[in-house]
Amino acid sequence: MIIDNSLVNYYCNTVHIEERDIEEPEKNELNYISLTTHDGEFGSKPITMNWGHQDATLRGPVIATVKHGGQRNAIGAHSGGYCIYTALAVASGQLSSDHIPNLKMTSPTNDFGPFPSWTDPKKIVTLDPWGHLVTTIFEPYFNKGYDIRPTIAVTKAHIDFPEVKDALRVGRLVADGKILKEDGQSMVTKAAIEPVWFLPGLAERFGCSEQTLRQALFKETNMMYPELLTRTDIKLFLPPIGGLTIYIWGDPATIPNEDIPLAVRVHDECNGSDVFGSDICTCRPYLAHAIEECIRTAQNGGCGVCVYYRKEGRSLGEVTKYLVYNMRKRAEGGDTAAEYFNCTRNVAGITDTRFQAMMPDALHWLGITKIDKFISMSDMKYDAIVASGIRIVERVPIPSELIPKDAQVEIAAKVHVGYHGGSEYKVPTAEELKGVTGRGANEYD
Amino acid sequence: MIIDNSLVNYYCNTVHIEERDIEEPEKNELNYISLTTHDGEFGSKPITMNWGHQDATLRGPVIATVKHGGQRNAIGAHSGGYCIYTALAVASGQLSSDHIPNLKMTSPTNDFGPFPSWTDPKKIVTLDPWGHLVTTIFEPYFNKGYDIRPTIAVTKAHIDFPEVKDALRVGRLVADGKILKEDGQSMVTKAAIEPVWFLPGLAERFGCSEQTLRQALFKETNMMYPELLTRTDIKLFLPPIGGLTIYIWGDPATIPNEDIPLAVRVHDECNGSDVFGSDICTCRPYLAHAIEECIRTAQNGGCGVCVYYRKEGRSLGEVTKYLVYNMRKRAEGGDTAAEYFNCTRNVAGITDTRFQAMMPDALHWLGITKIDKFISMSDMKYDAIVASGIRIVERVPIPSELIPKDAQVEIAAKVHVGYHGGSEYKVPTAEELKGVTGRGANEYD
Repeated sequence: MIIDNSLVNYYCNTVHIEERDIEEPEKNELNYISLTTHDGEFGSKPITMNWGHQDATLRGPVIATVKHGGQRNAIGAHSGGYCIYTALAVASGQLSSDHIPNLKMTSPTNDFGPFPSWTDPKKIVTLDPWGHLVTTIFEPYFNKGYDIRPTIAVTKAHIDFPEVKDALRVGRLVADGKILKEDGQSMVTKAAIEPVWFLPGLAERFGCSEQTLRQALFKETNMMYPELLTRTDIKLFLPPIGGLTIYIWGDPATIPNEDIPLAVRVHDECNGSDVFGSDICTCRPYLAHAIEECIRTAQNGGCGVCVYYRKEGRSLGEVTKYLVYNMRKRAEGGDTAAEYFNCTRNVAGITDTRFQAMMPDALHWLGITKIDKFISMSDMKYDAIVASGIRIVERVPIPSELIPKDAQVEIAAKVHVGYHGGSEYKVPTAEELKGVTGRGANEYD
Repeated sequence: MIIDNSLVNYYCNTVHIEERDIEEPEKNELNYISLTTHDGEFGSKPITMNWGHQDATLRGPVIATVKHGGQRNAIGAHSGGYCIYTALAVASGQLSSDHIPNLKMTSPTNDFGPFPSWTDPKKIVTLDPWGHLVTTIFEPYFNKGYDIRPTIAVTKAHIDFPEVKDALRVGRLVADGKILKEDGQSMVTKAAIEPVWFLPGLAERFGCSEQTLRQALFKETNMMYPELLTRTDIKLFLPPIGGLTIYIWGDPATIPNEDIPLAVRVHDECNGSDVFGSDICTCRPYLAHAIEECIRTAQNGGCGVCVYYRKEGRSLGEVTKYLVYNMRKRAEGGDTAAEYFNCTRNVAGITDTRFQAMMPDALHWLGITKIDKFISMSDMKYDAIVASGIRIVERVPIPSELIPKDAQVEIAAKVHVGYHGGSEYKVPTAEELKGVTGRGANEYD
């Protein structure tokens, strides 16, 4: 499928890659098992990766399959942690190591980009902005037999969101027949994005050397991927983590236009609330409120965007999260806002490992330069977005009537440390925090 | 916190471990970086792991932290893929490598087990059944300075589930004030479980040798964890994947009692439906129906259990999922049930990598031996549960009125290949499948 996009042509036709200039892909028999590979060893010739290059074809494809050992230019594997399940499929004899995906008719339903941020090597370092266009941009490589996979996929959906249907029923939202139908369904474009990390750029974001980053990734995971140390010539890493999903109400083509309204929520996964509705936190209610705002903004001719990151429990995971809940509920003096972050610090040694500095990349991928309504109270998210060069006009806190029964502790603790409460929330003093209590252990145990 | 449980005492007091019998934990300075470790090398003396041993103290603790290199007896790291974020925290200087969790007051809110399945090395091979009790069972190790972490955490929650509130409003559910309150909140106990794989046992489940399993895990991930090959003395693997969460309505202590009703749904994650309500699949509606059944069963004195696995897109991940959606919608002849699985096979080379053979372990952890209502149509799930020794009395398909607008293709395709439709669904012939169509590409693009 040809994507008729003059900008893509501009970025990809400055230099034309001939198939004859591309090396034969190594078809790795995988009979000899090497424990790791080393920079410069015989047969090792990774396809050149010029991260952020003006020309996508010269930027080069991300080669991360297990097939082309010599040409692979990324550490790790596709599909995040699901590569483990791919391995099980091979172990059980149900999936051939040789399988090459048939990608016919899978191309994006909508065009995205290119945008100037895509060719600024500092602006995007945690995903491949060209990841949804690999079959067109790197067609000569495909024709040569390379197994290159998309790391971004774009499709559409019709959404049945219960809270939206409630809002329609009570008149808070009005059906327009296009964005929001009479039966309460809303129309979205959505993009799934797998992580592709450019290690030098990521190290810069963290203010450490690339070597420090590589060593920490290796050591703190009990020696996952020695290539992190042995292959300093390979700059890309596909980590075994969850990715992100972007939901867009309205016409995505309007997103880069600063004169057209744009509402954005950045949401970090919380299964307990987002799916199951636990009343100890504000996650799903805030997401629901954001979706209403997104629909309204789209109905006004603009766009509403929700970006959903797989960062459960502040990226500490759900086991840690429940341990912290228990500590909070059993604390002497009860579950108080004063101890909210201390409990996490006690168990995990840190309150948050989401690292919002990585987050704006998805917004840059969309071509965002200005956000009219930023539907989040997080100072960390706000600061990261603004520091990355995107302007934010208005910050929208969660309406206080949407805060679930046992979530006052969360809100008070967060507003105290710097979350933006606007005029809706008074900033509690340290003393007042002690008086904001949640459900007690006796109601709990 | 002492867990007063006579069964735990029985399993843990047959042999008492003295602190003096435990080796000093190695405090790894981590100045010397080894690319991998080898079986039998100097300083390598993993704490003995006797998987499935009758006595939990003799079974031994799972040691997976980065601190005690010599005594570590598991490949991989805690928190699944979130260990990558832990590494970022260390790289950025925000988390000390030395941190040891303070686990005071984090112990489970409810007792679980022990059960006979916990000490059958074949019954549970994908999680550590003692994972929520580590601070009590392995107390001598903690006192000696070992960093041992729970891999299971148990807490409670109050649930605001929109569809439950709807059901209450229209009278499908009735508040009892204890399981389901007047305001629509329901009470749950919930457990988060991280994966702990016993490789020999897992290989048996897959019908392959342990060596084949280890090699596939290593090769298909582009050489993640060489220890999979070099440390055949280490039998445990903590893979960087998502875990599972168990939601329980009613008193968990009734679960093992075959005379008390038990309803169970096994649910594999689908973010697009579970959180956002996409109408192309039945996931959230089926989960909502299951939760209603769980509440009713609990109100009748029994228990309702939902087990939620992080297996997005049949464990193929969301990028693959969206590529498949696009292929379905653009197929010549439209999106038909006849092509439902073919599209996945085209893109991924396989239709499903969830491997339900691993799934029953969570049910065995709960002490389940008989399920009265199994709320799933999946023949793969049913077969895996029954093969593992659990009886299923009744299978509950999704009520047809709950099937979203664009999900008829999914249901028809599944019932055709063997999903249990009961009396609710007629099994379509291969010819009839071609006539079951979804929304077309023109409504889609």
